[in-house]
Amino acid sequence: MAELEELQEGDIAEWYSDVIVKAQLADYSAVRGCVVIRPYAYSIWENMQRWLDDRLKATNHQNAYFPLFIPLSFIQKEKEHVEGFAPQLAVVTHGGGQELAEPLVVRPTSETIIYDTYRSWVQSYRDLPLLINQWCNVVRWELRTRPFLRSMEFLWQEGHTAHATPDEAVAEARLILDIYTHLIQDLLAIPVLPGRKSPRERFAGARDTYTVESLMRDGKALQMGTSHDLGQNFAQAFDVWFLDRDGVRRWPWSTSWAVTTRLLGALVLAHGDRKGLLLPPRLAPIQVVIVPIARSDEQRAQILAAAGGIAADLKVAGVRVQVDSREEVTPGFKFNDWELRGVPLRLELGPRDIQRHQVVAARRDTAEKAPLSLETLKASIPALLEEIQIGLFQRALRFRDEHTFAATTLADLEKLDEQSGFYLMNWCGGEECELRLADFKATIRCIPLDETLSTPTGRCAVCGGQPQHRVAVAKAY
Amino acid sequence: MAELEELQEGDIAEWYSDVIVKAQLADYSAVRGCVVIRPYAYSIWENMQRWLDDRLKATNHQNAYFPLFIPLSFIQKEKEHVEGFAPQLAVVTHGGGQELAEPLVVRPTSETIIYDTYRSWVQSYRDLPLLINQWCNVVRWELRTRPFLRSMEFLWQEGHTAHATPDEAVAEARLILDIYTHLIQDLLAIPVLPGRKSPRERFAGARDTYTVESLMRDGKALQMGTSHDLGQNFAQAFDVWFLDRDGVRRWPWSTSWAVTTRLLGALVLAHGDRKGLLLPPRLAPIQVVIVPIARSDEQRAQILAAAGGIAADLKVAGVRVQVDSREEVTPGFKFNDWELRGVPLRLELGPRDIQRHQVVAARRDTAEKAPLSLETLKASIPALLEEIQIGLFQRALRFRDEHTFAATTLADLEKLDEQSGFYLMNWCGGEECELRLADFKATIRCIPLDETLSTPTGRCAVCGGQPQHRVAVAKAY
Repeated sequence: MAELEELQEGDIAEWYSDVIVKAQLADYSAVRGCVVIRPYAYSIWENMQRWLDDRLKATNHQNAYFPLFIPLSFIQKEKEHVEGFAPQLAVVTHGGGQELAEPLVVRPTSETIIYDTYRSWVQSYRDLPLLINQWCNVVRWELRTRPFLRSMEFLWQEGHTAHATPDEAVAEARLILDIYTHLIQDLLAIPVLPGRKSPRERFAGARDTYTVESLMRDGKALQMGTSHDLGQNFAQAFDVWFLDRDGVRRWPWSTSWAVTTRLLGALVLAHGDRKGLLLPPRLAPIQVVIVPIARSDEQRAQILAAAGGIAADLKVAGVRVQVDSREEVTPGFKFNDWELRGVPLRLELGPRDIQRHQVVAARRDTAEKAPLSLETLKASIPALLEEIQIGLFQRALRFRDEHTFAATTLADLEKLDEQSGFYLMNWCGGEECELRLADFKATIRCIPLDETLSTPTGRCAVCGGQPQHRVAVAKAY
Repeated sequence: MAELEELQEGDIAEWYSDVIVKAQLADYSAVRGCVVIRPYAYSIWENMQRWLDDRLKATNHQNAYFPLFIPLSFIQKEKEHVEGFAPQLAVVTHGGGQELAEPLVVRPTSETIIYDTYRSWVQSYRDLPLLINQWCNVVRWELRTRPFLRSMEFLWQEGHTAHATPDEAVAEARLILDIYTHLIQDLLAIPVLPGRKSPRERFAGARDTYTVESLMRDGKALQMGTSHDLGQNFAQAFDVWFLDRDGVRRWPWSTSWAVTTRLLGALVLAHGDRKGLLLPPRLAPIQVVIVPIARSDEQRAQILAAAGGIAADLKVAGVRVQVDSREEVTPGFKFNDWELRGVPLRLELGPRDIQRHQVVAARRDTAEKAPLSLETLKASIPALLEEIQIGLFQRALRFRDEHTFAATTLADLEKLDEQSGFYLMNWCGGEECELRLADFKATIRCIPLDETLSTPTGRCAVCGGQPQHRVAVAKAY
């Protein structure tokens, strides 16, 4: 099998499904569009959750929980919101054997039910800022689904904050985008392009949507997380008021923001290769696997004992390690199995290694093998894992640089078919020009926050008009 | 207001709702029977989750996530299961604007969708035991709801395990009951009576249901958690097979078990008093509140600085502490407010205290006040919090002992109206006799595992027949 970037689109889709199932990340379920998140993937999700939850708490956010069901009439209160979400709703019409007087919607997102509650929580400027987050499941009825990337039900965190001034709300939306950037770059080892969405691509009901976009190894972009400046739209729709310091009643300014289990799909698509999954060490449920290599029962007992000792030492050093003591499969089978499952580092331990007081360390990322002295393992393994973590990020960054191009004219986008990636394009800001990108199955992913990228370098690539921004255009998942 | 045990049932209900709302544990929502879990209560739930999740992982359980929706036909596959749950289902009939070919049920519990998946996960004895847990929301359509205690939607963990032998399944169900016992006794400071349910009260589809039952301060019992020995029922219904060591194909034996956000209601009802909530220190989001008492602005600045220093020291010592620096309310208001919210320990800090290098510590449980030297606070406060934790458990245990009675004849249960509590009653095991308890609005809560309690001491209190067990009878939530 060739490198991913050389594969056709259909092959990538097949490769992706294969890895998801064979690496035991997810299973298809009896419910169309819903997957079972298996322990291996759920454990990666927990590692992301723990980091993000700590960061959110350190920045004074509190967790809460709001109802799964939303009265249908609530969704209809914010005009743009209902247009965006109405086609995707799952609707409960019967409960306890009776038809309901008003149907209930399974939350596609919780702004409406939350603002209905904020009406009683927010009375005075003293109640602000209100900084709430919830970890939960949401449902969006999708026609075409793919595990993690576009699932009918998915898990996420959704933050919902209210502020006394518009500046505070914008600062909050930007703070969260920074936290997402760190999560994705430092833990997932995937570089992001932070930016703002075009008006057309904004969240339904938002004044401004900030986004972090990444490039997958097939050159397609994936929206990794979004943070919305909601202005006063939801406060107004749900009649949320506060008495300000100056005695004036105002609607608070608010934000909402989310990352989802889609990030699990991003890990597969950003780092995976023909061998399968490749996990960054900081997220890997198993960072190191020890494979004993014995030719007799006697050797086996001795090697297993040594492997157990090494594992115990590494655990003390904070390494997530596992000994593969299965007898029914060969070492070769184990090598392939753990490579497929993306374990960053394999330690091979045979009789000769024990004699020499060493293990042979095999890196998943470079396939390099080198002996490591048992004496210094507690220091060398964590260092090696960090080296792999940073190497993965750098490789992904290099890949993105090599797949970022300039589009001076619309014709330049024809290259998208052969050479997928980000195309930086001058744009007049007009929706008509934006819609022309559909001819190339591309969209404006974002207006980069980095002005060295977003400052126009020439006239609009589509209409030749006065440019407003330079935007990142790509095919996207 | 009198002590809780002296209140009439209606008054308790009002007191409970009052505490829930005023202590900011939950809010009623626009959806009947669904509450908003506010940050204060959610934080208590997170403290329980963290402890339980660690224990489950330490005993080799892994977290996963299964779909929210279950095809209606799945629920119907296990005969008793469907009888138990059919009246409580919320049903999705429309998705994405279309009527569904087969309605989807919002999970009331996940055995069916999980066993449909286990069919492909379990092939060989080597795949067993399979030890899976999930943290999620479930929905049961209830006619009469109460925040936390009986909610249409609630949060829980549900464990689902499969084993190669029936003995292993029973051992697993018992292990989990032990873990629940520790959670509830050591963290919630509520004594439990572990036992088995009567066949009538078993989980729909179980061979045996283990339960932990506690007494609330009004003398009514609350089922705190359950652990089910499912036998081979679900494996059979969903065609789950494994090839055993001896080459024979068998259905695995399985268990399921859960505790829910109901435990938040138990905390209110087990420890609360006329002042409001009383939280055990190990779960309290705020263990210590510092209230500055100043008469001038100058004093105020000095005292706030001192309070900040004390708080910083206590945080280092691992104490969850908060300084109440609000200016718009009086110290007296703050005292009542934090007592209502159940903070275990209040530190009062005035100008004289600063001169004397002390704070005045006021215990929420005993209302005792005593000065504590600032020099030794980092040791004395954690010790005091532990003393309160243990004191709460002992008080609840004493309360239970004082409210455990013997019922030799059915007439003895007439006392339930005046003196609610556990009534230990000899029982022949017959369902007809069990049903007579309804005359007293009582049920068999459990057959205690402790044989000194469950060994019969005389003939069946109802029919005078041969006794099988001594059971704990009570009115229950």
